[in-house]
Parts: sequence; C-alpha cells; structure tokens
Amino acid sequence: MARRPIYLDYAATSPVHPEALAAMLPYFSERFGNPSSIYGIARQARQAVDDARERIASWLGCRPADLIFTSGGTESDNTAIKGVAFAARATGNHLVTTAIEHHAVLHTCDYLEKFGFEVTYVPVDSDGLVSPDAIAAALTDRTILVSVMLANNEVGTVQPIREIAALLRAQPRRIWLHTDAVQAPGDLDLDVDALGVDLLSLSGHKFGGPKGVGLLYVRRGAPFQPQQYGGSQERNRRAGTENVPAIVGMAAALDVVMRERETVRPRIVRLRDRLIDGVLQCIPNARLNGHRTLRLANNASFSFEGVDGESLLMALDLAGVAASSGSACTSASLEPSHVLTAMGLPSEVARGSLRLTLGPDTTDDDIQTVLDLLPTIVARLRSALVEA
Amino acid sequence: MARRPIYLDYAATSPVHPEALAAMLPYFSERFGNPSSIYGIARQARQAVDDARERIASWLGCRPADLIFTSGGTESDNTAIKGVAFAARATGNHLVTTAIEHHAVLHTCDYLEKFGFEVTYVPVDSDGLVSPDAIAAALTDRTILVSVMLANNEVGTVQPIREIAALLRAQPRRIWLHTDAVQAPGDLDLDVDALGVDLLSLSGHKFGGPKGVGLLYVRRGAPFQPQQYGGSQERNRRAGTENVPAIVGMAAALDVVMRERETVRPRIVRLRDRLIDGVLQCIPNARLNGHRTLRLANNASFSFEGVDGESLLMALDLAGVAASSGSACTSASLEPSHVLTAMGLPSEVARGSLRLTLGPDTTDDDIQTVLDLLPTIVARLRSALVEA
Repeated sequence: MARRPIYLDYAATSPVHPEALAAMLPYFSERFGNPSSIYGIARQARQAVDDARERIASWLGCRPADLIFTSGGTESDNTAIKGVAFAARATGNHLVTTAIEHHAVLHTCDYLEKFGFEVTYVPVDSDGLVSPDAIAAALTDRTILVSVMLANNEVGTVQPIREIAALLRAQPRRIWLHTDAVQAPGDLDLDVDALGVDLLSLSGHKFGGPKGVGLLYVRRGAPFQPQQYGGSQERNRRAGTENVPAIVGMAAALDVVMRERETVRPRIVRLRDRLIDGVLQCIPNARLNGHRTLRLANNASFSFEGVDGESLLMALDLAGVAASSGSACTSASLEPSHVLTAMGLPSEVARGSLRLTLGPDTTDDDIQTVLDLLPTIVARLRSALVEA
Repeated sequence: MARRPIYLDYAATSPVHPEALAAMLPYFSERFGNPSSIYGIARQARQAVDDARERIASWLGCRPADLIFTSGGTESDNTAIKGVAFAARATGNHLVTTAIEHHAVLHTCDYLEKFGFEVTYVPVDSDGLVSPDAIAAALTDRTILVSVMLANNEVGTVQPIREIAALLRAQPRRIWLHTDAVQAPGDLDLDVDALGVDLLSLSGHKFGGPKGVGLLYVRRGAPFQPQQYGGSQERNRRAGTENVPAIVGMAAALDVVMRERETVRPRIVRLRDRLIDGVLQCIPNARLNGHRTLRLANNASFSFEGVDGESLLMALDLAGVAASSGSACTSASLEPSHVLTAMGLPSEVARGSLRLTLGPDTTDDDIQTVLDLLPTIVARLRSALVEA
C-alpha cells in the first residue's frame, strides 16, 4: 500500500517521543551505573532519577518523595490498592470502586476478596459516568479506600473525581482515594491537590514514554505497604534496581505532553469531533459510546449494530488503519467489553464496538481517510452478516 | 584524569551490550505496537516477544510457555516465592532458604511470615557454602519450597544446587526448588533440567541486557499465583503491557553471553585469578571472601582488616576505579553485610570489604592498575585509622 499506515490506537500504546528516546539513550551505555552505587557513573544515574522525580513532581504538584517509580500502570494500580488495603486493614475491610475500571483495578479487588476484603462495584449510567451520590451511598463505616479512574480507557468518559474527593473529605473518618489516571496525561490536569486524590497511577508508554515504567503517587500519611520486597530503593516502598533509562524517558515524555498541551489538545479535539460527527452522520445505526462532552480529548468510541467488531478491526487493518475494539489488554478475549456491558449495551451491540484514539501525530488526512473507508466497510460487513 | 575509568562492578549492573541495544531500538519507535493488539505493528511486537521467549527457552532447556517476563530479578524472586507459598498453602506453610540470599528473597520471606508461613534460614560455612545436608536437616513434613541462590552476589560462592535438587527429588512428597540465578549468565550453565530446579530468576541488566526486565522460569505443574493482576498477558501469570524493547534486549544479551562464553569466560577467570593472587600477595592481612574455586568466574571479594570499606571505595572512585563493598542494593546501609556476617566474619573485618567484579570488557591493564593502586590505598587508610 502506498499510503502510510494510520495509527489510531494511542490509548493502547504510543511510540516513544524522539525527545524521550534521546534523553534515554545515554543511560543504556556510557551512563549505565546502578543508582545505588557510590562512584561516578552511578552518581550520574542517581542524579538522573532524582531529576526525573523532581520534574514529574512539579507537574503533579506534589513532593518528589511522594512518587514511586514502578514497572507500569498495572503495577501502580496493584500496589496502590493492595498497599492501602493491607496497611489499613485494622481500620476496615471495605473497598469501593466502579464497574468500568481497568482490569488492573478490578482483578486486584478480586484478589483482595480472597483475603477477607469486601468490594462494592458502583454502577455507571449509559454514558459511562460514575455518580458521586452512588459513591456516597456505597460507603460504610468499614470503607478504607475508593478507587475511581480519572477517565475511562475504552469509552473516554471523564469521571467527576473532584466531587468524589470532596465528598470523601466530608466523611467523619478518613477514606483514601485512588485514581487510575493512565489515560489522562496530555489532556487532563494532573495536580493531585486540585484533583483531591491520595494515590494516582500513571503509565509511561501511554503518553510517549517507554513501556516498562510507571508511576504511583502516594500522599504523605496515606497507609502503604510495598508489593515487592528486596533492596531499599524508592525509600523502601518498591525494591529493585531503578529502571534509569525508562524513568528518564517517562519524565521527558511528560515534559513534552504538558508543555505542548495548549497547542496539541485543541487540534486533537477538533479532529476527534470531526471524526465523531462524520461517523454519526454517514453511518446508519452508529452509536457514540461514552459521554459526548465529558470525554477524553483523543477518544472516539462507537458501536455499530449488526457488525462483528473483530471483522471490523481486520478490515481496517487490511486498509492500513490500526484501531481497537476496546482495551488492548483484553483484545484476545471473546467476551463483550465489561465497560460497554456496565453502560447497559446489549452484548450484540457491544460486540460491534470500535475505539479510535488519536495522538499528536494524527492528521486531517488520517481522519478523512477513515471517514472515507468506514461507511463502506460497515455496510459490507452488515450485508455479509445478513446474507449469512 | 587521562586514564579511562575502570569499571569493576559488573555484579551491580552492566552496560547494555551494543548488539542488545541495536535489537531494542526499532521497538521504541517504528515497531512500538502493543503486543495485545491485532494490527500490523502490534503483530510485529508480538512476534518479537515470542521470538525472544523461544530463544531464551532454548538456552534454559525449557518450554517457551514456562517463562514469565518480569520487571527484574527482584520481581522474579518475589513472584516465585510468594507464588509457590500462597498457591501451595494447603499442603504446607514451611519454607527453607539460606542466610546469604539476596534481600529480594530474604525480605519476601519476612513478608510471608506475617501470613503464617514459617521460614528456616540455613547457615553457611566460612566460605559461604550451603551444605545439602543442612538443607535436608531443615525439611519438615510441612515444607513446600526451598530457595537457594545459584551463586552469591557478594562473595561469588557457587552453591551445590544439583545436589540440593537431587535430595529434594528423593523426598516422599514434592518440595519445590527455586534458585536466584541472577549472577549466573555468562558463567554457569542455566539448563533448568540439568540444575534440577523448578523456578529460576534472572535479571536482564546483570548480563548486558537493559534494566527494568527480568525473567522467571516456572516448571509446568509447579504451584503458582501471580503477584500482579490485570490483563491476561503472560498467560494470566503477569499482568501489564509487555516491555517489548527490554524483552528483545534481554534475549539478545543472553544470546551474546552464551555464544561468547567459551572464549570470554576463561579470560575473565585468568584476570580474576591474577587479581586475587596479586591482592593476597601484596597486601598484608587481606582475606579472600568466598570459596577459592567454587566461585563465580568474575568475582573477587576481599576483606582488609583495619580498613573502612566506604573510605576504600571513595579512594578507589577518586582514582577512577568503580567498585563495591558488597551488593549495590544495600550500599546505602551502614550495617555490615549479612552475607559476610553469616560467614562468621567479625563485623570490624566485614566493614573492610571490597567486591571487584569483572566483565567482558575488563583488560589486563585494568587489573594491573588496580594491583598498583590498592596496596598503597589500603596502607594509607590503615595508617590513618591508627593515627585517628
């Protein structure tokens, strides 16, 4: 094919930004030291990790010491939820989360149920929106932690975290708030005090940093227990040699997306809206999944009745368009998305879902090409299904 | 300083081998896909992870499906020990390990004690050698797991894993054997059947791979429970987006060290022996830590009575030599090494320890420089201590 492939799956992963890769490269070879050692090249590595921590802390409005570098968003979510649960066990055994969280949150909650924790899964409305009142109603006098994502990875709905934080602060006893903010960088504000969150998870490769690195913010005073043990790295909160190049790359990538947010975000919103409007206009029985306005700048998620989602993805792939049905982490599964199901979509509609997520390199031409291709592909798949 | 710095801390970390870095680079940018997705660039990433797994499996003599990619040696050790302990809990609550394991093993055992597990820490002799008889004597009818490192990271002593494996196989009930083999690649055989181990941990950055990636081998049929939950990656045994570039880099680095072992290892042994003989000959009251012959090819560990280890490291650093007192992971600690203490060294001797670990780039000139420098530095520090 002559045309370059069109990548519209930035919510699954992103290419490492050239600035981030350039920042990383020296730490693989000439500055390869172990930050725990004391000689020259090790001090360079230590300094690089310290610098990265300070720069990220400044974007999050927190102390550098409140940040723990992890191997990714999944480790951050696991560590946050297990960390609070086991450390605050003496004060309660009840957790509150939502039906549309990432599996890194939901399956960690499943795991904790084996240890005697009880979990309430708050439902969402048809837009995928969590109601603060529903969170409030789920609280008991044994609740220790609430975990609500900042924005949903499949349908893009942005949750009212500030309102949830405010209602938790108004409770007679302290209930800690964790948010999976993995989809937020480059779009939403990450200031932990403005958000009112006590723990926050990020994943490097979702915003132009490398895979294999993530971040967990833990507010000073929040209960915490490490997930993995060994050396005294990360102030005894996460053992294991620091992944120096990846930490440096993640910090550089966050600098890029935060610095360019004011110029890049409006362009992505314009392209996303053009895509959403075009699809809804040109394809009959197309449904936008997620809230129309309270949604991630880069997310366009649809359901097409009478279309098999996997066939749709394969047809798009053949046409040189990389897209997703829901989340990358569950794409091998034949089950309809737990997010779409929680939003009340019948499974035959949920199976015909398509997530297109835009990035800083997405162009008007990319969107036009998808708008040219998609109606034909959907019509063809629908007629094939009718004939079968 | 005109002379290039001399790096003699390969046991702490190693530079990424140029061949490994070259293999990694495409996966940061043009082949950046998420292996769980289904389109072109994602399939390239999936293929790269599959290839890496197959090549590593061939060096370990195991099935590719028996390998789990982790974020490093610490995660591998934690996952192995907690994984067997929690999964085999119904059959017993007793673990056996040794007094000289890495903290990733020892502190994981501490953690398990909070959950009702009992741990026996088998002592070692003055060479840091674990006796199979002592392991046998520690077994009870509740023992489910034995964890003994293949070679010690501080003093280099290689443990009789095959003998320990044989005696465990002779027990009336199955007791699983884990080995932390982090220091072994490039030196010792890694064939899991020849070793007789059921679980084996590796860390990429110890043998020319990148930081932030490791490996856990789990024999088919061994009890296992994941450490972190989320997506279905790694056959539901380790959730989280695969760290594609790092996995590719680790496999390439293992290819290099295994391929070059026959030529590189004898040279390193010769240089190590020259270093050991020279130090013992030229410096009075110098002691070699660890077994003289049953030791890692690249490890020379000494104790100098009447010398402060930290001052020694700083003097070497000023002279352009990167070395360690014990393990990098505990270098910030003022405690004498738990390994040297377990070997019966008085703490005032253990505090004067120096670990020099060689790598493929170490030269005769490097060793000569250290042999020229060290006697003077030790003498100066000793006289300073006497004067003080």
